[in-house]
Amino acid sequence: MQLSEKYSAQFGLIKRTLWWSLLTIPSSIVTGSFVALLLSSVDRVTSTRLYYPWLLFFLPLAGFITWFLLKRLHEKSDNIILTGIHYADAGVTRKSAGPVFITTLLTHLCGGSAGREDAALQIGGSIGSLFAWLFRLETTLVRVVTSSGIAAAFGAAFGIPVSGALFPLEAVKSGNFPYNALIPCLTASIIGMLTCNFWGIHPTQFQVIFFSKLHPLFAGTFHIAPLLLLKVAGLGVASGLVSCLFFGLAGWIRYYTDKIISLKWLIPIIGGILIIMLYYLLATPDYLGLGVTSAGQQAVSIASAFKAGGAHTWSWWWKLLFAVITLGFGFRGGEIIPLLFIGATLGNVLATLLQVPAELFAAVGFIAVFAGAANTPFTATFIGIELFGGQYVVYYAFACFIAYFFSPVIQSKPGHRFIAIPK
Amino acid sequence: MQLSEKYSAQFGLIKRTLWWSLLTIPSSIVTGSFVALLLSSVDRVTSTRLYYPWLLFFLPLAGFITWFLLKRLHEKSDNIILTGIHYADAGVTRKSAGPVFITTLLTHLCGGSAGREDAALQIGGSIGSLFAWLFRLETTLVRVVTSSGIAAAFGAAFGIPVSGALFPLEAVKSGNFPYNALIPCLTASIIGMLTCNFWGIHPTQFQVIFFSKLHPLFAGTFHIAPLLLLKVAGLGVASGLVSCLFFGLAGWIRYYTDKIISLKWLIPIIGGILIIMLYYLLATPDYLGLGVTSAGQQAVSIASAFKAGGAHTWSWWWKLLFAVITLGFGFRGGEIIPLLFIGATLGNVLATLLQVPAELFAAVGFIAVFAGAANTPFTATFIGIELFGGQYVVYYAFACFIAYFFSPVIQSKPGHRFIAIPK
Repeated sequence: MQLSEKYSAQFGLIKRTLWWSLLTIPSSIVTGSFVALLLSSVDRVTSTRLYYPWLLFFLPLAGFITWFLLKRLHEKSDNIILTGIHYADAGVTRKSAGPVFITTLLTHLCGGSAGREDAALQIGGSIGSLFAWLFRLETTLVRVVTSSGIAAAFGAAFGIPVSGALFPLEAVKSGNFPYNALIPCLTASIIGMLTCNFWGIHPTQFQVIFFSKLHPLFAGTFHIAPLLLLKVAGLGVASGLVSCLFFGLAGWIRYYTDKIISLKWLIPIIGGILIIMLYYLLATPDYLGLGVTSAGQQAVSIASAFKAGGAHTWSWWWKLLFAVITLGFGFRGGEIIPLLFIGATLGNVLATLLQVPAELFAAVGFIAVFAGAANTPFTATFIGIELFGGQYVVYYAFACFIAYFFSPVIQSKPGHRFIAIPK
Repeated sequence: MQLSEKYSAQFGLIKRTLWWSLLTIPSSIVTGSFVALLLSSVDRVTSTRLYYPWLLFFLPLAGFITWFLLKRLHEKSDNIILTGIHYADAGVTRKSAGPVFITTLLTHLCGGSAGREDAALQIGGSIGSLFAWLFRLETTLVRVVTSSGIAAAFGAAFGIPVSGALFPLEAVKSGNFPYNALIPCLTASIIGMLTCNFWGIHPTQFQVIFFSKLHPLFAGTFHIAPLLLLKVAGLGVASGLVSCLFFGLAGWIRYYTDKIISLKWLIPIIGGILIIMLYYLLATPDYLGLGVTSAGQQAVSIASAFKAGGAHTWSWWWKLLFAVITLGFGFRGGEIIPLLFIGATLGNVLATLLQVPAELFAAVGFIAVFAGAANTPFTATFIGIELFGGQYVVYYAFACFIAYFFSPVIQSKPGHRFIAIPK
């Protein structure tokens, strides 16, 4: 009978989804533990750098070691995760967790301007891929397990499980979510997050900072102000263009340094020297390292951008330049945290200009630049919801989708975009 | 140059999206006004029925008039909206706003157990379609304008714009969101909502009720309890199966009444008599009409389901039976509100059984049954976020996606499902 056939097909689907979800658990536990180690290690080396500021002078050397390690281990591209999801037989990913870990720590020890969560994602994808290889999984499953590894890492690194589950699915093919992979990915990101918490590592810094700061504003009932919506649209356009500028500049640096400089090991050394020069030019350490929280009262950071006057007019541009040089010249660590910094400070500055609350615009800029950069407006909207609450979701969604449209992919050469793929 | 070509293509896309968004504004204003009229009219006829309880005896007559009107106007199917989105030349939709409006009021005047927001969606789709026909739009644009009409109606009827924008896109093709239609749909749902508010009609009943009730629970910081997550998964399974039962029963009633009863006008009369008999059997008016708020202290309603003890063990089943008879025997009004009632009461009962907070489970049941019934787990998650806040989004998403998988489409005959389409 037709009905019973429909049912048995559906039960097959449910059984498969359950099996996939169970399959992601071991790799998610390993990923969550690895991410906990990464987060605490980055925190430790950052403290070390703040204690011994002269470590910045070793940045060129760190660049050289990064280059040497990656060459030695035959690691070439930054966008290894997506390669791993797209082509099951790419085979590079399962070996890349180690090198990514070490080179990210090197960047942060010497003050390179980069992230750490992206390294976590790469490690997650790598571990997922490793498990897929160990269990001798078939092609479809390799994609599911690799995606769920990234989801586990995202959930662990940011503490926002739904965004974590959506990210690998949306990043691969914008707007087309394979619903049967969503439950395994959600399981993975929750397990990753719980594992990371188990080790005593709580990636709560964003939540705590923003919840307390935003509470007075975000406590009202749901309300749409048309004028505010237009201003948010403006921020969406600016965010899209800035994320485009980020990847455009990084791509150009990569392309031209590779073309002009024939001694490849010289490239990261020059990058390190440029960062040191910029540091002396601006006379501030605000744009080095992660920039999530700031040391002093006057310093600019992601946290400070959520207060009115917490960022200078050109803070977003300087962070962009520092990060683009760091990453474009071959350092590792990834671009997510720098992008969030750029978005939050851009939002802060535009908030003053357009006379709107700084915390709302910092939050919207924070997610909109991410949406434009990673081509993941849905995930970015969920990041806003999970970090800052659901009250202002209509502004989040509006800004993220506009940023997505105003950030065309500049990909004159493969490998120019770090995490994103063509629209 | 390749880069400039990419840019000009992207600017073409942006221009088109902007043009589409502007195009949706007039139809959204008309839709928002129409929905305001519908909501206030249903409220008025419901008050009339509560004042004159004997109006229930006219339900068979109302059924006959409904049948006569729809036959006279050549309106056959319930799922006219989706036909309109799928086939631009279907051409039925633009005439159906009037009949849907009148027949929905008839159902509510005489105590039929149905919704009103679905009628709003049909009216929105119909008005969008009418505008597309007036402006002589091409095929792609007809789809965009029809979708945005539904979005405007959803935004206006429920006051939740992001869910409203997602619903028509997700309902047509699960998991595959055309991102370029999202900004026009979001514009439409915001305009629809603002228009409805302009006429003094605020669909805030859900928000006010739930916010106040849920506040103590939902005020905590983000936290995942693995045991609670498992219980939520159980509710997701139950919600999926119940939504499946709803459409299965409604479909069977339609199929067999149509097969057995040759005098078609007799079908709604029998349906009306069955509702009257059930009313006397249960001796409660709780399952008649909308059931959003309750008249007495002891009555069961969507609002009461958010309090511990606010629903009886079999409330969900009785509402299901009342709604399935009302809709299966040919009355109009739609199934969204009955489904929300069933979900909230089911959640309430399971909350007592599993010893969890009633308000959380009522909220999760509310959206999960909708997710399973409409095949729109994403939209349902956003409904949860926009109505109840973003704190518990991981539970919402988990339950909605599980419900989606446990609700296979039973479609032995076309037209059996009211709003949903095959997975």
